[in-house]
Amino acid sequence: MPHNANNPSRKTWLEISEQTDFPIQNIPFGVFITKDYIVTIGTRIGDYVIDLGALHQLGYFDGIDLSDAVFLQDSLNDFISEGKKTWRLVRNRISDIFEINNPRLQENSKHKAASIFKIEDVEMQLPVDIGDYTDFYASKEHATNVGSLFRDPKNALLPNWLHLPVGYHGRSSSIICSGTPVIRPKGQSKPNESGVPGFGPSKLLDFELEMAFITTDANALGTPVPIEEAEDYIFGLVLFNDWSARDIQAWEYVPLGPFLGKSFASTISPWIVTLDALEPFRVEGPNQEPQPLPYLQHGENKSFDINLQVAIKPENQDETVVCNSNFKYMYWSMAQQLAHHTVNGCNIRSGDMMGSGTISGPTKDAYGSMLELSWRGQHPLKLNDGSERKFIKDHDTVIMRAYAQKNGVRIGFGECSGKVLPAL
Amino acid sequence: MPHNANNPSRKTWLEISEQTDFPIQNIPFGVFITKDYIVTIGTRIGDYVIDLGALHQLGYFDGIDLSDAVFLQDSLNDFISEGKKTWRLVRNRISDIFEINNPRLQENSKHKAASIFKIEDVEMQLPVDIGDYTDFYASKEHATNVGSLFRDPKNALLPNWLHLPVGYHGRSSSIICSGTPVIRPKGQSKPNESGVPGFGPSKLLDFELEMAFITTDANALGTPVPIEEAEDYIFGLVLFNDWSARDIQAWEYVPLGPFLGKSFASTISPWIVTLDALEPFRVEGPNQEPQPLPYLQHGENKSFDINLQVAIKPENQDETVVCNSNFKYMYWSMAQQLAHHTVNGCNIRSGDMMGSGTISGPTKDAYGSMLELSWRGQHPLKLNDGSERKFIKDHDTVIMRAYAQKNGVRIGFGECSGKVLPAL
Repeated sequence: MPHNANNPSRKTWLEISEQTDFPIQNIPFGVFITKDYIVTIGTRIGDYVIDLGALHQLGYFDGIDLSDAVFLQDSLNDFISEGKKTWRLVRNRISDIFEINNPRLQENSKHKAASIFKIEDVEMQLPVDIGDYTDFYASKEHATNVGSLFRDPKNALLPNWLHLPVGYHGRSSSIICSGTPVIRPKGQSKPNESGVPGFGPSKLLDFELEMAFITTDANALGTPVPIEEAEDYIFGLVLFNDWSARDIQAWEYVPLGPFLGKSFASTISPWIVTLDALEPFRVEGPNQEPQPLPYLQHGENKSFDINLQVAIKPENQDETVVCNSNFKYMYWSMAQQLAHHTVNGCNIRSGDMMGSGTISGPTKDAYGSMLELSWRGQHPLKLNDGSERKFIKDHDTVIMRAYAQKNGVRIGFGECSGKVLPAL
Repeated sequence: MPHNANNPSRKTWLEISEQTDFPIQNIPFGVFITKDYIVTIGTRIGDYVIDLGALHQLGYFDGIDLSDAVFLQDSLNDFISEGKKTWRLVRNRISDIFEINNPRLQENSKHKAASIFKIEDVEMQLPVDIGDYTDFYASKEHATNVGSLFRDPKNALLPNWLHLPVGYHGRSSSIICSGTPVIRPKGQSKPNESGVPGFGPSKLLDFELEMAFITTDANALGTPVPIEEAEDYIFGLVLFNDWSARDIQAWEYVPLGPFLGKSFASTISPWIVTLDALEPFRVEGPNQEPQPLPYLQHGENKSFDINLQVAIKPENQDETVVCNSNFKYMYWSMAQQLAHHTVNGCNIRSGDMMGSGTISGPTKDAYGSMLELSWRGQHPLKLNDGSERKFIKDHDTVIMRAYAQKNGVRIGFGECSGKVLPAL
């Protein structure tokens, strides 16, 4: 990447806070709706949202091969289909337009009025029309914790776990944008001694701290994606709360996996942070022993150092941070996940989403779910308002945040939040 | 349904065979491409394919509230979104247009030339853009066989099985139309004594005989669909081959369910047969003991008597029928599946697809997979050409067929076929 969009010394002429998640080095992509009900694709710098459809009509992307309507869409799918070369050209161009020494838009008040909104004046939408959503189970700490809680602490990891990134298909229709309330699901749970299953609102509602990556069209059906090419098909990442109803899940999931315990709602953050913006934060992943099969072996630094945080905010109370984790703890890299997903020929399309699975770290305060944090309810968490939590209560808001930081540059994801409403 | 589209004595002016799957009582919906590369929505009567886009432009659907472009689409999703009332009006109108005493199209050779094609002159496409695909596990015989083979014949059914329709999310991107070849998938399999997993082309490639139903928009996220309304949201059914690589599946599926053992390809038949066309074939389903929870209880005759058949055709040889089953064997009805799927608030959209799971009958020749037919390879099947099969070989074509028959009317599904090509 010869362009200097990631240069830490680059500044913008927009007035932004030093602590923002969205400096000029970020340039994420999202979809928003204006007060006039216009839906368009945008980026964000500081607390400004920039209408890329408007900038395109005004000629700011001249010289880049883009269709007229590529940004006048209610999803990023078409833009993502254009491929990595185009994403880079557009991100670099945006970086140049807002670079502090560039007068073109800076000094055109008419164009600025047509293309720049304050964040509080727009409503963020789901950024992609998600075709298929896959969830992995890629944190060794999480898999070990779950295995210890539900099976055998001495053999917590199942035999396949160290050999392949275990994954399963999830529900796309119920993926919602941060800020959308989540209605507590009803469902069946394990029978008591009478033998009749329980039924009613879930009593064990949980979050799962995850990240997810969004893909572009990667391969034709039947043709695997080689692991060294896998990252070329990753557009970017979002924060992801894979809400889970543990009681529903425990009763239903044998032998075919999670279903209604997950499919009532899954929340993602609205801004897709590109892999390009995360380049400076590459790190080596965990040591993999035994060595994976050749189709899962890759070069160095395929993990990313991204700080993750979860807070619980009871109604009318301050929030309490309950978890600090990091995306780098993930055992299986995104490249390994994508290579594994396609090794059987499965085709990956623009707008598909792949979740990491719960990202738990090595210490107890880094566990990425209430199941692990409260150790299945045995050790309730104390919140700042004095209340206790084993799982999530009605009217609680769960807020996830993520950022990477280095050389004074902070690349953040904003919030992934959702408030739980009582069951109908 | 006061209209007589299902009347067994109704005849068409088109010349069709008495044995066709597609009499005037069927009127299925599909998407086809002409020799001039025009993609449009059509129906089928006998061996004729009728271009509904052309008929609509020529005014044959006047009086029905339809947008101009509703049939000029590469998927049925928009039409399905119109809802049951519109599907009925359109199906009844088509029935009237082709009714033997109706001269309007019959005597207009220009209109006939513009709207009627021979089946061999078109290519069928996937009929819907499938958003989410769910697969159930709803045949008691199949679940019992699998439980006996892999676990304990005395406790073959898992504890949840009789209380809820077990289901899981599947992969939408790799669902293909009948006739598309299937490339044998590669993947990991269980380690031998060395501890290193196997890797290579699947050695245990199997079919699964299923039917699947296609839904319309049913509910907002958070709001369950009551069971007595569930059938209102079912547009129709297709035949479905849920190809399975047993060796890949066996190694990967614990604890989160099937993944790459399924997602390499899933084949559906091109014509969606409406629930209205299947009305005359309602029958009572299997007795359910214990009684399901109230949200899964429904009135009578929610099952359908549809004969199912699977044949294997080796390269350059005649086919051998290896299975005769029936859709009525399914323990959990489609209405129960849809009600269960939404009881947690999961939203169902137009174009979603729900598979039945393998439909095995009570006798050995009614088992719906090679796994069961060959009893995990212990009893190879003899084919008519003298060869034997434990599982599916390269260059074999698997052909599924389905029809319902009563009062001299046969409502068929055509074929759901796929030829297996060697691994890359």
